[in-house]
Amino acid sequence: MKQSKLYIPTLKQTPSDAEAVSHQLMLRAGYVRQVSAGVYSYLPLAWSVIRKLEDIIRKEMDKVDAAEMQMPAILPADLWKESGRYETYGDNLFKLKDRHEREFVLGPTHEETFTSVVKESLNSYKKLPLVLYQMQMKYRDEDRPRYGLLRGREFLMQDAYSFTANKDQLDVIFNQMEQAYRNIFDAAGLNYRAIIGDAGAMGGTDSKEFSAIADIGEDTIAYSDDSDYSANLEMAASKMDENLVEDKKEAKEVDTPNVHTISALAELLKVEPARIMKAVAYMADDEPVLVMIRGDYDVNDVKLKNYLGADFLREATPEEVSDVFKSVPGFIGPKGMDEKVKVLYDSSLVGLMNFVVGLNKADVHLFNANFDDIVEETPEFRDFRIIKEGETSPDGHGKIKFTRGIEIGHIFKLGTKFSKALGANFLDENGKSNPLIMGCYGIGISRLLSAIIEQHNDENGIIWPVALAPYQIHVVPIKYNNDVQGKLSDEIVELLQNEGYDVLLDDRKERPGVKFADSDLIGLPIRITVGKKAADGIVELKIRSTGETIEVSKDELVNSVKILLKNQ
Amino acid sequence: MKQSKLYIPTLKQTPSDAEAVSHQLMLRAGYVRQVSAGVYSYLPLAWSVIRKLEDIIRKEMDKVDAAEMQMPAILPADLWKESGRYETYGDNLFKLKDRHEREFVLGPTHEETFTSVVKESLNSYKKLPLVLYQMQMKYRDEDRPRYGLLRGREFLMQDAYSFTANKDQLDVIFNQMEQAYRNIFDAAGLNYRAIIGDAGAMGGTDSKEFSAIADIGEDTIAYSDDSDYSANLEMAASKMDENLVEDKKEAKEVDTPNVHTISALAELLKVEPARIMKAVAYMADDEPVLVMIRGDYDVNDVKLKNYLGADFLREATPEEVSDVFKSVPGFIGPKGMDEKVKVLYDSSLVGLMNFVVGLNKADVHLFNANFDDIVEETPEFRDFRIIKEGETSPDGHGKIKFTRGIEIGHIFKLGTKFSKALGANFLDENGKSNPLIMGCYGIGISRLLSAIIEQHNDENGIIWPVALAPYQIHVVPIKYNNDVQGKLSDEIVELLQNEGYDVLLDDRKERPGVKFADSDLIGLPIRITVGKKAADGIVELKIRSTGETIEVSKDELVNSVKILLKNQ
Repeated sequence: MKQSKLYIPTLKQTPSDAEAVSHQLMLRAGYVRQVSAGVYSYLPLAWSVIRKLEDIIRKEMDKVDAAEMQMPAILPADLWKESGRYETYGDNLFKLKDRHEREFVLGPTHEETFTSVVKESLNSYKKLPLVLYQMQMKYRDEDRPRYGLLRGREFLMQDAYSFTANKDQLDVIFNQMEQAYRNIFDAAGLNYRAIIGDAGAMGGTDSKEFSAIADIGEDTIAYSDDSDYSANLEMAASKMDENLVEDKKEAKEVDTPNVHTISALAELLKVEPARIMKAVAYMADDEPVLVMIRGDYDVNDVKLKNYLGADFLREATPEEVSDVFKSVPGFIGPKGMDEKVKVLYDSSLVGLMNFVVGLNKADVHLFNANFDDIVEETPEFRDFRIIKEGETSPDGHGKIKFTRGIEIGHIFKLGTKFSKALGANFLDENGKSNPLIMGCYGIGISRLLSAIIEQHNDENGIIWPVALAPYQIHVVPIKYNNDVQGKLSDEIVELLQNEGYDVLLDDRKERPGVKFADSDLIGLPIRITVGKKAADGIVELKIRSTGETIEVSKDELVNSVKILLKNQ
Repeated sequence: MKQSKLYIPTLKQTPSDAEAVSHQLMLRAGYVRQVSAGVYSYLPLAWSVIRKLEDIIRKEMDKVDAAEMQMPAILPADLWKESGRYETYGDNLFKLKDRHEREFVLGPTHEETFTSVVKESLNSYKKLPLVLYQMQMKYRDEDRPRYGLLRGREFLMQDAYSFTANKDQLDVIFNQMEQAYRNIFDAAGLNYRAIIGDAGAMGGTDSKEFSAIADIGEDTIAYSDDSDYSANLEMAASKMDENLVEDKKEAKEVDTPNVHTISALAELLKVEPARIMKAVAYMADDEPVLVMIRGDYDVNDVKLKNYLGADFLREATPEEVSDVFKSVPGFIGPKGMDEKVKVLYDSSLVGLMNFVVGLNKADVHLFNANFDDIVEETPEFRDFRIIKEGETSPDGHGKIKFTRGIEIGHIFKLGTKFSKALGANFLDENGKSNPLIMGCYGIGISRLLSAIIEQHNDENGIIWPVALAPYQIHVVPIKYNNDVQGKLSDEIVELLQNEGYDVLLDDRKERPGVKFADSDLIGLPIRITVGKKAADGIVELKIRSTGETIEVSKDELVNSVKILLKNQ
């Protein structure tokens, strides 16, 4: 392809409003342009990468017998009301009405649509399992779209849905899909981790999230430095040593006037925060909940919400602490707590002795307290804690480290949530009607573009992995309108295309400096410069990732390119 | 691919609500399902055909150096207001607001978006010409979606846009694109005509429409039985012999009480309709217009509208004939017509003598009238007439015939309409700023599916052209779970796949009759039945289009298939 026939509006300056490196580079290298907030046009180079990603995905889906199809993007609102998600998605749904005032949504995901289409005929165990997928633009009215393609409002997804007759079938498909997804991310040259995701809304922990390591990532991943363990910070189980047994001391009330924080309390009483029993007041679906936790730890809202099975969870306001918990903000504690309040104890408290705790009275705390001072029997302890760096990994192997990640894929065992809601049933071997057991699987294709660039770039631009590069080879004549250079360039392009390579020829009348800078920015794996030595049939090969250059003659060219591309 | 892994919900009965044969067959053969009026899901077989069409289009676009990219489907309403089309598209636009109350439309076409994206950098004659295209779902809120994919509200288009520096460059690209489109329709096995379209809204006649011949088509095409001439009925020029000269007779008023139609008038006065000067009253952008035409012809609204340059045209109501035209409904004529009314004469009236005409008085007509009886000088005649079958073709070669057609593609020389509206300029060789000269080109990909099936079917189902069939070969074992048949079937599938063929294997536990009926319905070019002679390595090949069958041994299979597919 001749470069003059593509539209590649490169920029000299880094756009000031782009924060993420991938966003900056995609703008600078002429890959995308914003049409409105979070809505992008994919210019020819970006679209070429997208199509290569799609082909990789197709190849892996073929292997697991998943069939490609295409659902509409405009979906009847009724279907979403039936599943209950019209409500739960709220403002994130783009909504519209047609000329007859019928309500529609722009699909952010298609569980309802697939379920409703297959239920017509997927009515016997003989037709199961079945896996269907599509690759399609999705819509989500993000409150704060940002980071270019990372959090957009129109974005390309591959979404797959599996329909099975029983849990065993589902497990087989789920594992096949996990492997397929791993193959896809490996092929895309990504450094990623498969982690236990927040499956809260879907129920259960039968889900995995694939996260590409990147500083710009919106999720914090907790992983072990010595095992496969990784989890979203919100989901990471926490394993900890029990507090040490010591001699029980005499409890006494101490004055703590106007002290409202753990750190102020620790300073005033000259104790470690680990010696304070912290109380955090919540409203869970309008019910008061008090969580007790060691003062050096924080409550993990997701764990708490999942344990309670609550739809909405938030910290209580000071007014609620007074009015609902009948306590004093800053001095709240479990002793004598109103019986309407559910009191929970985090496992960080196991064995804690001689601690400081609030008494629901202003300006005092109980010092050297022990469990028998505040409750009648030792309570049950549960894990409500956010894991910390340096802790022992929950699997017992290695220490926990944190890193940031970009969610690039997600696989879920959905169960019967949607099939029940939409009445999608099948007859089993015994002629009994059962709801279909479903799984859903998704890859953020456009977001993958950002993740790959976040991991593959340098100060000069993008560095494409060979499998995804829009073109593998960039032929850059110093002067294309010079007869010798032009002729050799054309010959080289033909030679390489005949070998099956995608080749981009810079046929523009630009200064060499401009061409080289653009070439680095665009980031194709190999640049072939055709210059003065063209008369001798000699050209320069430059490897984008290392910057190394070698001179080769036309005769050695195909072989050299083959070796260089293989070794990247 | 195993048939059990696809979702192909075939139906025994023809759905009663589907009128078009293609719509019926796509439902019956399990290709599509309706999700809401005019909005479809493309099941695996249909999507496979769509992807083959996309590949054919890509190949042809590559040849003309057009570059693929992708624009968003949700577009800022402001862009459409700027071009003026927010208004003119009216209710056909799907409109929506985001959570911040910003207005968007779902793109039915992308002239504005492409123009606005390229204007940033396409700023020099050196960068021209440039052709960009995309393949994308489009949205149009049709008042009456019908005929399945033929008139949908979400539909797949290929839309291309060319940017050029001058008319010559535009002509070159336009001709290249026409040839590319012809190649695409030829490859798709379509019987189509390239016709002069209604370019009214775009201006000028520099447009061509590609129309697939089909009874269900919404357009009537007038074509010559002896030349290349074809045009939409609305646009077909009309060439006719002049009326014969005869002796002028004496005009007289005759009573024609309560006679309001040409046929009633002709019967009452015992004259041919061709002897009556018919008057048709219109309101064009609220201005009264009276068109005179021979009684055996009809006025072509499109020609009239184009001639007047009017935005809205409709026939006047009887009230308007009385109040605005100051005449009497049924008895209107040019004589003494109010001077506010523009009176036009169709060329069918050239040389007409001794005719019948209204006098703007109730219950009388002028009989044996001549032009000097009704107007002061012979008026100018223009072509406002709808052409009729059997007429001489406007190019003078052959007779006109009518057929129905489905619009499958359209190419336009847009000129500077959008570049001017959106300020997309470039510097020419002399450093002077000029608006870009544009062309736009479109193929209705999903509609193409319908058009192809309309032309390729029989009473048993679809008959796919080889190039588009979702799979070229259907391997149908009578009993797949019979060891011998199963093994031979698997071998055959592998053999053919290794030769590069797409093969569908019917591995279902269904009765042979069901399998054969489904196979005919789905319509793959070759069926290979593996039955009792499997033990001898013998199978039956059936050609879908002719119904012919031959027995071949496994050894001859690949060769036989190759020959049969080539000769279709």
